[in-house]
Amino acid sequence: MAKRIAAFGEVMMRLQVPGYELLSQASSLNYTFSGTGVNISSALARFGHTGFLVSRLPSNSVGDAAEAYLRKLGINSSMITRGGNFVGMYFLENGFGARPSRVTYSNRQESSFNTAPEGTYAFAEIAQNIDIIHFCGITLAMNDNVRQHMKALAKEVKAHGGTVVFDCNYRPAHWGEGGYTKAKPHYEDMLQLADIVMMNEKDAMYILGMHTDHTERQDQLMELIPAVADKYQIAVIAGTHRHINSDNTHSLRGFIYKNQAFTFSNLLTFSIYDRIGAGDAYTSGIVHGEIEGFSPEKTVGFAAAAGMLAHTIVGDTPMSSESDILRAMTEAVGDVER
Amino acid sequence: MAKRIAAFGEVMMRLQVPGYELLSQASSLNYTFSGTGVNISSALARFGHTGFLVSRLPSNSVGDAAEAYLRKLGINSSMITRGGNFVGMYFLENGFGARPSRVTYSNRQESSFNTAPEGTYAFAEIAQNIDIIHFCGITLAMNDNVRQHMKALAKEVKAHGGTVVFDCNYRPAHWGEGGYTKAKPHYEDMLQLADIVMMNEKDAMYILGMHTDHTERQDQLMELIPAVADKYQIAVIAGTHRHINSDNTHSLRGFIYKNQAFTFSNLLTFSIYDRIGAGDAYTSGIVHGEIEGFSPEKTVGFAAAAGMLAHTIVGDTPMSSESDILRAMTEAVGDVER
Amino acid sequence: MAKRIAAFGEVMMRLQVPGYELLSQASSLNYTFSGTGVNISSALARFGHTGFLVSRLPSNSVGDAAEAYLRKLGINSSMITRGGNFVGMYFLENGFGARPSRVTYSNRQESSFNTAPEGTYAFAEIAQNIDIIHFCGITLAMNDNVRQHMKALAKEVKAHGGTVVFDCNYRPAHWGEGGYTKAKPHYEDMLQLADIVMMNEKDAMYILGMHTDHTERQDQLMELIPAVADKYQIAVIAGTHRHINSDNTHSLRGFIYKNQAFTFSNLLTFSIYDRIGAGDAYTSGIVHGEIEGFSPEKTVGFAAAAGMLAHTIVGDTPMSSESDILRAMTEAVGDVER
Amino acid sequence: MAKRIAAFGEVMMRLQVPGYELLSQASSLNYTFSGTGVNISSALARFGHTGFLVSRLPSNSVGDAAEAYLRKLGINSSMITRGGNFVGMYFLENGFGARPSRVTYSNRQESSFNTAPEGTYAFAEIAQNIDIIHFCGITLAMNDNVRQHMKALAKEVKAHGGTVVFDCNYRPAHWGEGGYTKAKPHYEDMLQLADIVMMNEKDAMYILGMHTDHTERQDQLMELIPAVADKYQIAVIAGTHRHINSDNTHSLRGFIYKNQAFTFSNLLTFSIYDRIGAGDAYTSGIVHGEIEGFSPEKTVGFAAAAGMLAHTIVGDTPMSSESDILRAMTEAVGDVER
Amino acid sequence: MAKRIAAFGEVMMRLQVPGYELLSQASSLNYTFSGTGVNISSALARFGHTGFLVSRLPSNSVGDAAEAYLRKLGINSSMITRGGNFVGMYFLENGFGARPSRVTYSNRQESSFNTAPEGTYAFAEIAQNIDIIHFCGITLAMNDNVRQHMKALAKEVKAHGGTVVFDCNYRPAHWGEGGYTKAKPHYEDMLQLADIVMMNEKDAMYILGMHTDHTERQDQLMELIPAVADKYQIAVIAGTHRHINSDNTHSLRGFIYKNQAFTFSNLLTFSIYDRIGAGDAYTSGIVHGEIEGFSPEKTVGFAAAAGMLAHTIVGDTPMSSESDILRAMTEAVGDVER
Amino acid sequence: MAKRIAAFGEVMMRLQVPGYELLSQASSLNYTFSGTGVNISSALARFGHTGFLVSRLPSNSVGDAAEAYLRKLGINSSMITRGGNFVGMYFLENGFGARPSRVTYSNRQESSFNTAPEGTYAFAEIAQNIDIIHFCGITLAMNDNVRQHMKALAKEVKAHGGTVVFDCNYRPAHWGEGGYTKAKPHYEDMLQLADIVMMNEKDAMYILGMHTDHTERQDQLMELIPAVADKYQIAVIAGTHRHINSDNTHSLRGFIYKNQAFTFSNLLTFSIYDRIGAGDAYTSGIVHGEIEGFSPEKTVGFAAAAGMLAHTIVGDTPMSSESDILRAMTEAVGDVER
Repeated sequence: MAKRIAAFGEVMMRLQVPGYELLSQASSLNYTFSGTGVNISSALARFGHTGFLVSRLPSNSVGDAAEAYLRKLGINSSMITRGGNFVGMYFLENGFGARPSRVTYSNRQESSFNTAPEGTYAFAEIAQNIDIIHFCGITLAMNDNVRQHMKALAKEVKAHGGTVVFDCNYRPAHWGEGGYTKAKPHYEDMLQLADIVMMNEKDAMYILGMHTDHTERQDQLMELIPAVADKYQIAVIAGTHRHINSDNTHSLRGFIYKNQAFTFSNLLTFSIYDRIGAGDAYTSGIVHGEIEGFSPEKTVGFAAAAGMLAHTIVGDTPMSSESDILRAMTEAVGDVER
Repeated sequence: MAKRIAAFGEVMMRLQVPGYELLSQASSLNYTFSGTGVNISSALARFGHTGFLVSRLPSNSVGDAAEAYLRKLGINSSMITRGGNFVGMYFLENGFGARPSRVTYSNRQESSFNTAPEGTYAFAEIAQNIDIIHFCGITLAMNDNVRQHMKALAKEVKAHGGTVVFDCNYRPAHWGEGGYTKAKPHYEDMLQLADIVMMNEKDAMYILGMHTDHTERQDQLMELIPAVADKYQIAVIAGTHRHINSDNTHSLRGFIYKNQAFTFSNLLTFSIYDRIGAGDAYTSGIVHGEIEGFSPEKTVGFAAAAGMLAHTIVGDTPMSSESDILRAMTEAVGDVER
Repeated sequence: MAKRIAAFGEVMMRLQVPGYELLSQASSLNYTFSGTGVNISSALARFGHTGFLVSRLPSNSVGDAAEAYLRKLGINSSMITRGGNFVGMYFLENGFGARPSRVTYSNRQESSFNTAPEGTYAFAEIAQNIDIIHFCGITLAMNDNVRQHMKALAKEVKAHGGTVVFDCNYRPAHWGEGGYTKAKPHYEDMLQLADIVMMNEKDAMYILGMHTDHTERQDQLMELIPAVADKYQIAVIAGTHRHINSDNTHSLRGFIYKNQAFTFSNLLTFSIYDRIGAGDAYTSGIVHGEIEGFSPEKTVGFAAAAGMLAHTIVGDTPMSSESDILRAMTEAVGDVER
Repeated sequence: MAKRIAAFGEVMMRLQVPGYELLSQASSLNYTFSGTGVNISSALARFGHTGFLVSRLPSNSVGDAAEAYLRKLGINSSMITRGGNFVGMYFLENGFGARPSRVTYSNRQESSFNTAPEGTYAFAEIAQNIDIIHFCGITLAMNDNVRQHMKALAKEVKAHGGTVVFDCNYRPAHWGEGGYTKAKPHYEDMLQLADIVMMNEKDAMYILGMHTDHTERQDQLMELIPAVADKYQIAVIAGTHRHINSDNTHSLRGFIYKNQAFTFSNLLTFSIYDRIGAGDAYTSGIVHGEIEGFSPEKTVGFAAAAGMLAHTIVGDTPMSSESDILRAMTEAVGDVER
Repeated sequence: MAKRIAAFGEVMMRLQVPGYELLSQASSLNYTFSGTGVNISSALARFGHTGFLVSRLPSNSVGDAAEAYLRKLGINSSMITRGGNFVGMYFLENGFGARPSRVTYSNRQESSFNTAPEGTYAFAEIAQNIDIIHFCGITLAMNDNVRQHMKALAKEVKAHGGTVVFDCNYRPAHWGEGGYTKAKPHYEDMLQLADIVMMNEKDAMYILGMHTDHTERQDQLMELIPAVADKYQIAVIAGTHRHINSDNTHSLRGFIYKNQAFTFSNLLTFSIYDRIGAGDAYTSGIVHGEIEGFSPEKTVGFAAAAGMLAHTIVGDTPMSSESDILRAMTEAVGDVER
Repeated sequence: MAKRIAAFGEVMMRLQVPGYELLSQASSLNYTFSGTGVNISSALARFGHTGFLVSRLPSNSVGDAAEAYLRKLGINSSMITRGGNFVGMYFLENGFGARPSRVTYSNRQESSFNTAPEGTYAFAEIAQNIDIIHFCGITLAMNDNVRQHMKALAKEVKAHGGTVVFDCNYRPAHWGEGGYTKAKPHYEDMLQLADIVMMNEKDAMYILGMHTDHTERQDQLMELIPAVADKYQIAVIAGTHRHINSDNTHSLRGFIYKNQAFTFSNLLTFSIYDRIGAGDAYTSGIVHGEIEGFSPEKTVGFAAAAGMLAHTIVGDTPMSSESDILRAMTEAVGDVER
């Protein structure tokens, strides 16, 4: 059953050097617009839901380009407001083999989204018109202003009976030194409001400061996630373990913890075309499975396959349909489809 | 000794999304002109023969572009007639890793080739000027008109003492529901006219409805191919077994059945750049081996290496010279040639 | 005051050779999706209205790409249905100076739009949700099926109190020999349903067979347009006179006939970047002026400036905002805006 | 009536900076293969004749690319021999407005063509298989070896009753200091062998050292050309006067002198997309007119229109068909052709 | 005689939409690095001097790319310091005909240059190593910090006997409301330090608040410039009058006021490829003329031709050599140079 | 401690077919300028030294483009002289999997560098201004003129107390038949002048004609390299063993022989993006290690990692900083850097 889902988050302009040149070698950039919220609302729109983005863009040609691009991704732009002067940007230089990809940010703090004053968003109206809201830890790292928007909107959606999804997505570079200490109270606020949370044992240990005597990731996970769910009263916690293999493939196993039980996906191993944003595909798969009432096995398998396919897609934003993902869950790598 | 070889078939315009974007992400397409007949006559021209294409193109700028492109490929365009209005087209979105490539056709049935009226081609004159003619099962799937052209030309070439090559190349999507039943009589007509046939055990079982108790491909092949050769009086039957490996490489083994004996190539395992049309490189290798009087071992090894190299070439059409292929048969993967 | 406006028409895929090469010289194509309906609904969406397109696209990757592109243009895609197999296409080779641009069509008749069966569109529901509907003479030329859709939808909109806009846009190539005779009854049907009509004296003379003794275009216009308005009870008739100058600039003068009076724009002379679709920008300017209650002087000036700017924009579809056009009406060609 | 025409000349690789950047700004080059002989034989093939090129290319991937490109242009490559090591190259940086285009040559003297030893070409066989041969003054400037090839082939064609066309095309940079003196005896040799000569009064004055008291170009032309025709017994002399206007358009008037009479084309004024090679389009128009038996008026008008259109075409080589040129002779600059 | 010249100014990253698409239509950007200081030091390096840039760039891949690009332009990068986090950026959408070009800035105020703390630059050392320093009014508009750098460096250079060049270059958007009042004291400070000033009568009237009863530009200029030179003790004042013609060409006339006398260049009219930065080419021409001791006639003619050619060059930064400019001063628009 | 390092060598223009097309399929080329000397001086400049190139370029737009490109790479161009007419060029067609890359040279012998007359370079002045000079066996293969430049410069540097680096880099194609015999005396001259030599056991056996009874590479190496060091009094000999694996990865192990002891790097196995020039990255790592006084373990590990990273970089020339390489020595292949 199609739901109305909004994501709250910044729209970033991605400026990518084509091919494998460095910024100091090339002379052109491909640009797209993305961000966790963009990825989530677009992916869910592609699954048949209505995907809104709650964000703010400048009233200039960059803002126009961003909004046009979001519409192309299938996002309903009616909850986007205009104001401020800038769009956050990042440069991406593609790595190859032993050379990692490199991201260089422009100044996000001055972006329309990160400078949105109180009163920018019509929280009550938004809450009335959606079933689910998605937030992300990257947004939580921005500034107090943005954090207040997040928490106010989450409360409003809860008050209207909506579901709150929160992806921990801790980025050390955004919180700076002593980041875990700064971040903890804000993460706790969001976890108390959330119904579905994306995280793994590292978030529990480092952000929430929880302790375990286990040394293996899997054991840590199975001890800590139930404790988190219990402490913050979270209905669903899901996440992944990723391993980067020496042949540059990645291996991914998803988990979902729900009704006091863990369910794991198969371990998927695959080649990577574009790493960025693939985590959001996994999240959108979990949310879709929950909406559709899939079994935990199907949900976590669907989410993992969605994540795998997102690594094969150009750009941050997932482009696979539900049927693409279902086929990838069951079939071997195939020949040309014709 | 250089021969005069014609292929009968449609020229398709291939509209390929560059890189790994989807059609809904990109904004430009690379175009080339190909088709089984194009690939065969070009490959054989590159081996030193004269390669004609018997086909029909519209008298407009698309037809002009197609003919120029075919000449660039080394095809002698003097057997191409002009008329009708359209060129068949297909869109190609490149897959990556776990995501398969995708082909979307435009309307081929209205193409100049598929609407060619009786009398379009000067069959007798063509037959006088060539030594070998090549046909393909894709063409056989088009419509009655085209099938009549095919059979008439095959008979005319036989009548003039020429050699008929037929590649079964069954495409389920083109024959539609109940396709095997519809296809069988036409395939039998062609097999009765053919001297060299490209097929494997699946064609025998599904199209010709032949039975075997074996369950392994290799056993099925070795039972059924001799039966086909016997029943339809075919001098040479050749084909391949392809396996797609989990690391996205393909493995290929070629066979040739001739004088009541099978000969197999080594199993070749290789990376894929462009899958489409590689089967035609294998066929052209078999035909070249037969023309040149290679031993069956050399013929099947040459054809398999030609097929392997065609997977490393941009576009549908093989571009390797005889010396490129001979080197690939004997040498390990090498460093830069300079 | 923002209105809800729908356009009924085919979505065409435009395949343009970049730069000034011919199709037989180049190897890539830029693609966009356009059509008169696309241009109109997009232009009016850019002026602040809600622009719907009533059309039909295939359920494949070409249809997906088309719909994504239309959303990017600002079009609300909720009235687009999916079905059929193909999208109409045309190739565009840009002219330069003494060498004219050249358009080559693929087979439109087999497109999803042109093969839409009865019952494809929910006419009553569409009519309830819009204020204005736009039709075009190109669509009228397609086939009986499409013509029935057009007339049924026009009647339904009239029945719901909506406004019908009809652009005569006669294309000789689409009607074939004896075209004017074939076209006339259909044009008369549409004119009787229309409130706002785009045409000039040539349409009156050639399609409607009206007579005038005048030999000058201006005199013919001023005699015939009032007669047409009177005969078919049309509230507003607007159109342009275009002249191609020897230095490759074009000169354009717009007119509007309303309340028994003609109003003319200034004669605008300008350089051309992309000619195709510029007429639709003029139409959208007239419709916007009527919606907003502009004076006839402002409406025709706005429409002419919108048309002029559309010649400077890449692609068929107008991209100028209301403020861009208002500035172009008042200011001289300016220096860089920064 | 279709003729067999060969041109003798070097194939140059043109390496063009795309757009308007300089070589020190850009990072990519577009490449094509051209040369006066290429342009002439391709243009005449496009008019329906068989166009051969007598030239020499290396047996490597550059030579293969060149030959494929020539076939794409419609040239019959069967008179091209392989040998030597290099292809002559030139870099082209496009000018804009007040900034002229700039050509920088690589080392032509070492090219396969310019190092072709005696015995490279089968002159007698060539002469038997063609009706017309074309030579150019650029080739004459290369070296003694090449000059001997030229003269030997010209004599052989004369001996077999063929027609010799010679385009004076004097390039000061190629002859170096004291060039006119060095060039004169070679030009005289060629003029004595030629039936159709492309030149104007400057060639008569500077190369042949002829004198006139007139100071106006037109008067000089009308005095000197008849004298040249008389002295060297040349049936047809044709050429152009070009003027570069201050708005960057060029004006061109063609002339033909035949049977003791001058005929002039209209003065054509037009915008320039690509200047290089346009003179060869004029020559091909003259040759075609002579072959087809056009009146002098039609021949010179056809040649001038061919030359004009060649300025609007990307690359050195003319791409216009006979019908394109005939239309350009009669029609005003038109709107989009569709 | 080659001099050592430094320019003080920000390096901007120019992100240009290729061709004529808008940012909301395209998907790639060409990037270069420029700025008034960049343009000046590069242009003078191309004339044979040593051109330094005094500026600040971040220590990341964007800063590396910028520095590499500046070196490519011929700039000596040894006076560039590294620090801060960002590079100022602007988006450029090319206009066409009636549609003006559009510049959209990202946040410059946070750039490495505009946040450079006191002590960033080694002013005394710089002053010892250069003969001439160039400043620009755009830099003056940034913030107090930057203004202090400017004035301190200008004083240091004066103290070491160097020459100070100041280009008024007033940009209303940068100073905001009431800008002239804010700007005046800073402009006066710079004028008192400057030896060579680029300005015209508008700067005198609007920034300096000087009065004239004349209404014609030329009369205003001839009254006010001598008054400015006198009041601020400026040895040389130079500038231009630009007129944008209705056919999109620009007309430019340069002036120089020196030793109580005006000298004017011819009025140059030319087509525009890239408008941005062309004023800096004029300035560099004036500075070069002064260094070389050209007559005022030659200096102003050279500067005007340099400015004209800069409009024909891709990018902000002039690329013409002294000999290119001298040729443009004397010759008509020419044919291809080869 | 930053040193002043010069490399002596030719600047080649690399003309690379983009992607994986052949020269006969594509229509554009990417160009860069490289050569062993370019790669060495650029790599060392990136490590913080001053990198000069001693070479000769023509005074035309190709020479200008080359010099601008070298400056962009960080090379100090003040030791480059201008003269002659041509730049050496090579075409590169990228291989894929089983299809090897292919290099086709244009005529290098006529290049500005290879035709530089005696007196071109100011050897004494160069020697006074540098600490280290680098030569390469490719240069040694050119002609007697170039060999005399090499030896004279090496002697001059020795005389001024500088260090001489010589990379054997024997290319069979450049020396032709009987190459080892021709080459030996010249190699011996260089070895006698060199302090640091890049070579392995094959150079000892084939060029120097040394004998070993061992059949394993490692044993041959360990017998012959000490003998070479002893015979020619070479302080440091370093090199690599490379193995091409069947999955198209390469494995590389570096060695350094110094103070009578061998030190080996780990065996590194990695994917290849661009093979050409990677050996020069290894050399630059050895030189940098020697300059910085790294331990042999660190030097050879740094050089091997530098070589590995160079295979992941677009173009011939290494682009990695010291910190990039140090990180690659210690860390596993990582996720995106952000």
